[in-house]
Amino acid sequence: MKNTGNCNIKSKKNVSYKALGTLGEAVSSGLQSENVKISGKKTGNKPSSLPFHDRLYRPSLHFTPDKGFMNDPNGLVYDGRYFHLYYQYDPIAPFAGNVHWGHAVSTDLYHWQDKPIAVNQTQDGQAFSGSAVNDSQNHSGLFPHKDNGGLVAIFTRSTEMKQSQYVAYSCDGGEHFSDYVNNPVLDVGSTSFRDPKVFWHAPSQKWVMVVSHARAHKLSFYGSYDLLSWMHLSDFGPDGVFAVDYECPGLAEIRVEGGKSGETRWVLFLSVNPGAALGGSSTEYFIGHFDGERFIPEDRQVRMTDFAKECYALQTYNDMPGGDAVYLAWMSNWQYTEEVPTETWRGAMTLPRQMVLKHDEYGELRLVQTPYGLEALRQPSVLFDLPYFTSGEKAEVSLPPNQPFELVMDVSLEDIPETHIRDNRWCPPRFSLTFANQKGEEFSIGVDAIYNQLWLDRSKLRGFDNPFFTGQFSASLPQDARDFQLQIILDGSTLEIYANGGTVVGTALVYPDSPLETVTFRTEFLSARVTHAALYPLKKTMERITLE
Amino acid sequence: MKNTGNCNIKSKKNVSYKALGTLGEAVSSGLQSENVKISGKKTGNKPSSLPFHDRLYRPSLHFTPDKGFMNDPNGLVYDGRYFHLYYQYDPIAPFAGNVHWGHAVSTDLYHWQDKPIAVNQTQDGQAFSGSAVNDSQNHSGLFPHKDNGGLVAIFTRSTEMKQSQYVAYSCDGGEHFSDYVNNPVLDVGSTSFRDPKVFWHAPSQKWVMVVSHARAHKLSFYGSYDLLSWMHLSDFGPDGVFAVDYECPGLAEIRVEGGKSGETRWVLFLSVNPGAALGGSSTEYFIGHFDGERFIPEDRQVRMTDFAKECYALQTYNDMPGGDAVYLAWMSNWQYTEEVPTETWRGAMTLPRQMVLKHDEYGELRLVQTPYGLEALRQPSVLFDLPYFTSGEKAEVSLPPNQPFELVMDVSLEDIPETHIRDNRWCPPRFSLTFANQKGEEFSIGVDAIYNQLWLDRSKLRGFDNPFFTGQFSASLPQDARDFQLQIILDGSTLEIYANGGTVVGTALVYPDSPLETVTFRTEFLSARVTHAALYPLKKTMERITLE
Repeated sequence: MKNTGNCNIKSKKNVSYKALGTLGEAVSSGLQSENVKISGKKTGNKPSSLPFHDRLYRPSLHFTPDKGFMNDPNGLVYDGRYFHLYYQYDPIAPFAGNVHWGHAVSTDLYHWQDKPIAVNQTQDGQAFSGSAVNDSQNHSGLFPHKDNGGLVAIFTRSTEMKQSQYVAYSCDGGEHFSDYVNNPVLDVGSTSFRDPKVFWHAPSQKWVMVVSHARAHKLSFYGSYDLLSWMHLSDFGPDGVFAVDYECPGLAEIRVEGGKSGETRWVLFLSVNPGAALGGSSTEYFIGHFDGERFIPEDRQVRMTDFAKECYALQTYNDMPGGDAVYLAWMSNWQYTEEVPTETWRGAMTLPRQMVLKHDEYGELRLVQTPYGLEALRQPSVLFDLPYFTSGEKAEVSLPPNQPFELVMDVSLEDIPETHIRDNRWCPPRFSLTFANQKGEEFSIGVDAIYNQLWLDRSKLRGFDNPFFTGQFSASLPQDARDFQLQIILDGSTLEIYANGGTVVGTALVYPDSPLETVTFRTEFLSARVTHAALYPLKKTMERITLE
Repeated sequence: MKNTGNCNIKSKKNVSYKALGTLGEAVSSGLQSENVKISGKKTGNKPSSLPFHDRLYRPSLHFTPDKGFMNDPNGLVYDGRYFHLYYQYDPIAPFAGNVHWGHAVSTDLYHWQDKPIAVNQTQDGQAFSGSAVNDSQNHSGLFPHKDNGGLVAIFTRSTEMKQSQYVAYSCDGGEHFSDYVNNPVLDVGSTSFRDPKVFWHAPSQKWVMVVSHARAHKLSFYGSYDLLSWMHLSDFGPDGVFAVDYECPGLAEIRVEGGKSGETRWVLFLSVNPGAALGGSSTEYFIGHFDGERFIPEDRQVRMTDFAKECYALQTYNDMPGGDAVYLAWMSNWQYTEEVPTETWRGAMTLPRQMVLKHDEYGELRLVQTPYGLEALRQPSVLFDLPYFTSGEKAEVSLPPNQPFELVMDVSLEDIPETHIRDNRWCPPRFSLTFANQKGEEFSIGVDAIYNQLWLDRSKLRGFDNPFFTGQFSASLPQDARDFQLQIILDGSTLEIYANGGTVVGTALVYPDSPLETVTFRTEFLSARVTHAALYPLKKTMERITLE
């Protein structure tokens, strides 16, 4: 959860801060428009009541709140039956503030069922980010009458005076949480101490917490046997990119693919805001070892999870089946998240992403991220033929209207000329895909074969004009490669790009003023052989109102 | 110097690689347009022969090559009389390749006099980046008949087969260099070993070199007593932002302002390309200690020199008067440097910038950069009155036509409202400056008072459209501040932004299709008191053809 800072807290002072039991009890704050009427119904607003852009930009595969404002994923845990998604949530207005834990459950991480608010704001503060664990052994003693324990949330309660760590527990499978009576469980007298990630560390048979001293630019590790008493283990930082607030740390043991059998590393995740190199919010990670007390990076390199700037507050699932490392992150950036062009809802989660580590072309470990289980949602591929692209050739394919889709392709670049200079002009050999509509809006994704760079250029979309909403992003591909792979998922305003099997990942919001209708494949100054291509409409998994 | 890579080398194969003695001897390569005729004249092309944009985008204060392509600054040294600027230079065409060391001299770092090419490409390879030192004690023995020694260049010769370090020496005060007979002086059998920075390390009474193993993501330190024999001292890296090539390292001892008397730190500079977070090329730095053998960072943070993406290959001056740390950097980015919209020349240097270190609001050291000696070039300020800006107020001031200028201002933001939400919209309190022309082009610089972010948005200029040419940049200002300072220098296509006395610096190219005519100051949702403002036309120091 973002530090609200003085001005932010001030900005909310005219909001009633009384504890809200359910959505139905929400006070009318005076901040809402006609379209933000609070309702207990799960089926959402009727189509006619939703502005055009709220429907156009609404994904139907990515999780979004029916209404209100959502940011960080919280409490991600699999309880053996359901994947829980809790999230930072302002149910009152589509702006950050009044922070509760919203809640949804799923059996596949795509079909989400909305649940009542799980953790309320109280007199002790708003319910900022944190974790949930399955205390199946009742280590906490909070479930005296339950054989298999229950879910425990460890999170930050935040007031203007203090941020400290609280425990709450659920006796109904995660629907409602009650604050533990002796809260806070961890209080260092700071206004900048938040976002605990807690997990079970089997080798040392204890619970481990990593939590952020946001403005001190440090993380602390704590250990506990009962989730209630926490002992300090070690500190980490300052480290990584210089930034204002350290937030939403995470630590996960991740498989090394192509390594020795059973080889793993611990990966420490750190979200920073503001001040990331691309502006505002972004997530970096460190690869190393964790012995139950201390995280030791194995090199000094700083790696970013994403080459664009709308992927923040990444959190991995606890108790993931098979020990997979799967995360959700918030698809936005604090620089403009309250200005994006929807009126009744704001905020989306990434698709669930599985992570492994692989050695790259330099022998160095890097995160590889792929959508988790997305194949199950593919509908039959749209049929289309692509030619062998000689230089200057293009081919246009219609996009499935108002439907999330996945475009996958393997491309070999050929006939890259010896010289790139003609008539005193630099003629860059490039392969590109342009997603466009007839009103002249477009965004493009492409590869430059001289500098081996992948780009995303969304600057020619007209739905959102903001000085912080960066138009262009890029990333390096292997420098000697002539082949590349792309996997692109477009779903409402959410765009995910996975290049080369997920070694390069870009997460971005796109806001065309009108629906995009076609994708045009194009070559310049080279030839291209598309050895595989498929365009899969994807099943709509979210019951939200979108364009029909 | 950028690794040319396979394709780049290929791209130049049809260029004759014979050694070029002077510009006048340059072969006609077949790559040149009518406008790129090579000439020995220092006065440059006549106005009528230069395309409009070559004149519009030409700075008259920043150093640019009269014609051809320039990248990294090289061999920056003060010899007691002149500041030397050598630079990576293709005299044959306005594209990277055929790399010589171009040369200019100055007595103030602003008025530059062109000199003949100083280091040629030879059978041993192109003359890639490196240093020059004043070997006034004749440690090298290369100046047997000179009492006060002479300039020695240590640089990389690069072929497709090898990159190794060469020494050349000048018997005429730096105008011409001759290769030492027993070159290379440092050869590790690598194709990726370049860009030596050499300086005199007084405490250990030896010459020190830091040089890059570009693709191995490491730097090495070497020491020498004679500039000819080099012993390995230590290695550094991988460290910092994950990227493809490590280039143009530098090491300088820099004063800590506000610290103990005489307090300094050593700062290690590293330029990386491609793969910087913003895309392509950028420069990072590490703060620590250097004992003559080893650089030990004092923390693990990675700091960037710039919040935009056209400031690369920073090199500090050797033997700077007063021990000041002053640098020049190349104002471009490999992603698009060969495509920027000029035809006869490409490449510019930053203004000379002085660096000190200061503790920031978190107590952490950061680089503070300011233009060195720019005040001497100020002409009388344009007279204008700015009102007290209430919310929504604006004031327009005409810019001096076809003239470099400096705009300085101190601003206090006031009346920041308690809530930023009106009519279900987020209303960000902002102060901005918009530089515009009557054709609807503009770029803006502004401050958002909620998130305390500075922005640069150049996306509404129409002179250059490229998927890698990022439109928006931003940086964090102190989170609790309501005052800020701006110093903006606009000179042809070069823009430099120094905020808060140089604690935040942005270096960018701007390409309006027509000249910018006005600057408009504007407030939204806050009031602003401009406590100081001045707009100084700056003296034109470069004899180049620009718009009249």
